Amino acid sequence: MNTQAEIEDFILNGHKHYLSQVSIDCAIFGYHEQQLKLLLINNKFVDGWCLPGGYIKKTETLVEAANRIVMERTGIGNLFLQQFKVFGDPNRAKIEEFDEEKWVKLTGVRVTKDNWLIDQTISIGFYAITDFSRSDPQPDMMSDDCAWFDIDSLPQLEFDHDEMVKEAMHTIRVQLYHYPIGYNMLPEKFTLTEIHALYETLLGKKLDISNFPKKLIALGLLKKLDEKRSIGAHRSPHLYVFDKERYDQALKEGVMLG
Amino acid sequence: MNTQAEIEDFILNGHKHYLSQVSIDCAIFGYHEQQLKLLLINNKFVDGWCLPGGYIKKTETLVEAANRIVMERTGIGNLFLQQFKVFGDPNRAKIEEFDEEKWVKLTGVRVTKDNWLIDQTISIGFYAITDFSRSDPQPDMMSDDCAWFDIDSLPQLEFDHDEMVKEAMHTIRVQLYHYPIGYNMLPEKFTLTEIHALYETLLGKKLDISNFPKKLIALGLLKKLDEKRSIGAHRSPHLYVFDKERYDQALKEGVMLG
Repeated sequence: MNTQAEIEDFILNGHKHYLSQVSIDCAIFGYHEQQLKLLLINNKFVDGWCLPGGYIKKTETLVEAANRIVMERTGIGNLFLQQFKVFGDPNRAKIEEFDEEKWVKLTGVRVTKDNWLIDQTISIGFYAITDFSRSDPQPDMMSDDCAWFDIDSLPQLEFDHDEMVKEAMHTIRVQLYHYPIGYNMLPEKFTLTEIHALYETLLGKKLDISNFPKKLIALGLLKKLDEKRSIGAHRSPHLYVFDKERYDQALKEGVMLG
Repeated sequence: MNTQAEIEDFILNGHKHYLSQVSIDCAIFGYHEQQLKLLLINNKFVDGWCLPGGYIKKTETLVEAANRIVMERTGIGNLFLQQFKVFGDPNRAKIEEFDEEKWVKLTGVRVTKDNWLIDQTISIGFYAITDFSRSDPQPDMMSDDCAWFDIDSLPQLEFDHDEMVKEAMHTIRVQLYHYPIGYNMLPEKFTLTEIHALYETLLGKKLDISNFPKKLIALGLLKKLDEKRSIGAHRSPHLYVFDKERYDQALKEGVMLG
């Protein structure tokens, strides 16, 4: 969606190819060396920061659409993408009165008030976690900037996107013990120090390291290997892997008890 | 939506009041004396069993729409309603070719192929748990039966509704340890025997009763009261309540560890 002809076609004919009353917004978290960041775009229409989002093609599944949106903004494909909540308050994304001249100025396209992009939308929130150091942020046609922000110093977001971020974090914190969320953040075999740092960063709090592995193993998340990594004289910590099979089993049967 | 005039208005003009590309389907579970049931409707168009569902008014929040749908089918309002997943496979609800005569026969209304009800939809799944003995099941305009089915002997469902039920059960089983799902199934103060029976029924498996309360208390779900219920000579079990405050705290901070 780069040329003016493509932009014009999307605005004027997009409703033939996309659903118009449902959108997707993505909370894309970036982790690298104990830092947690969130990807934001600067929306030209409201002149403020938002989560990256987009529409769903009539031929796509939801996760395909979310993957395409994440890929377009980060250059990274095939992430673990998880729905976290649907946002459907009728006033959730009300912007100012329809302003025909503003549309022309910002997009170069003259639209009418019944354009599909002006429809009321319900938005499906997806979250993803990736390594921000591997990404290449790209703005979309409705934005003029796309950048990573430290999770502790986010700007105030437009629409209901502050609530979206809160709900995404909440879901990650609950699901951290049920899904292999760390999968693509850690090497296949990792040390306790590595997973401990990841979990502390995602949860935003200190975790007692002496208790931490015991609990994760008791929950069936981790498997201790008969293997160590040599990282120096007298330093060869044990290696661990995620126990994917036990995850799936636990989810099927109900977790934690029994 | 009972008279023919109302049905006709809904079919011909509904798109002015409802979103047309998003619907809600509800997995309404019923619990009573260790039995678990699911509410189903018999859809006239496909002549098969489905979850009850409906559309979202342009002025409603999602949970208001879900509550209205549950109320219309069961007569019960204000349940704990929880989104569990959005279903958006482009082929998820494809029915046979549009058949104008069938529409006339089943609804008494002549519609064209571009009618809003024939649009491709994405569906938001909500679950609720209620006491089936208190409900009064009512079919909707598109169905000719509405009834409770034992969870262990469900008929095969139409569209993607088998998957919806599977995902709803899965979510309940995970969330059972994070949300006060039992709230409206148990008296405010309950015995261990009562909550044990509820959890066993919802999880569909036996739980060791000697271990069960210890784990629930450790997770911060239950509070033991200094109070007993007298149920006969030498029988006065301790009473428990849900610790709603600790639930909220645990969810905010990340559950279980730390």
